[in-house]
Amino acid sequence: MSILMPNGKPKILLGIDPGLADTGYGVISADGQKITVITYGSIKTAKTLTLQERLKQIEQEIKAIIEKYQPEAAGIEKLFFQRNVTTAMLVSQVRGILMLILANNALPTLEFTPLQVKQSVTGYGQADKKQIQQMVKSICGLKEIPRPDDAADALAIAICLASCYKNPTYR
Amino acid sequence: MSILMPNGKPKILLGIDPGLADTGYGVISADGQKITVITYGSIKTAKTLTLQERLKQIEQEIKAIIEKYQPEAAGIEKLFFQRNVTTAMLVSQVRGILMLILANNALPTLEFTPLQVKQSVTGYGQADKKQIQQMVKSICGLKEIPRPDDAADALAIAICLASCYKNPTYR
Repeated sequence: MSILMPNGKPKILLGIDPGLADTGYGVISADGQKITVITYGSIKTAKTLTLQERLKQIEQEIKAIIEKYQPEAAGIEKLFFQRNVTTAMLVSQVRGILMLILANNALPTLEFTPLQVKQSVTGYGQADKKQIQQMVKSICGLKEIPRPDDAADALAIAICLASCYKNPTYR
Repeated sequence: MSILMPNGKPKILLGIDPGLADTGYGVISADGQKITVITYGSIKTAKTLTLQERLKQIEQEIKAIIEKYQPEAAGIEKLFFQRNVTTAMLVSQVRGILMLILANNALPTLEFTPLQVKQSVTGYGQADKKQIQQMVKSICGLKEIPRPDDAADALAIAICLASCYKNPTYR
């Protein structure tokens, strides 16, 4: 898969997969020829902390990542219907603060459904988690599948974001 | 209804009813004898704005309210099951940033279910919206029922918070 930036200049892109216990993040550099992984990982918050302590931790860590890697745009999973409403509401609280932090850093932010991410990364909307992870590994030229899962998901979102820059609308 | 603060010193309390289009707020002063309303209102965001713009506006306005009125504690509606998952997820995003701002301002925050608020304000868990609003008007010594509805709800949450200070656990 070749990501074609309009001017061949590498672009630093941040993908985020929000969660209260685990927020995955992935930072990539996309240029005319290839995608290079800069960093990826997961912000993990302990269940023993209060909700407010967990939100503060996520805020501090994502701010540090933005400051360190200076991404030029961000991708984040779109809100979609979840069967488990309690989980949906917990994740949404985290997503709210992430959206706010991206806005306060003037980072252009695109939202993607899981289907859009699948199609962008594998070219196939029915791909399973394992297939997506294999493609992320391959596109990024990694030796192993990135771990944990939410970091791999965040990289997939960043790859999906990179592919948008092929579309003149987003240039 | 008499709110008895442990030492008779007035306490400035903030109640918040989160929402994306309307976030109600109410600031009260509670002393040994009575509750006085300091301010109340609603942060309204336009549907024409992006989610990020709306979250930024809510952040800025609630920060300004905290800075101006210097509350010592905050009450906010607890997350509870909602039938409309989409609405629940939108509100939760707002709630997330509000919880974070309260935490970043080191404001002790208590969460209340709608039932707790009803029982605290009216002494009766089956009270309807109108009855709660009448009690809020009466407790606060207002001439009219506070408008809009979410501002009245926020005042009810602040009154519920005040009543907690009768409980030594929260002193």
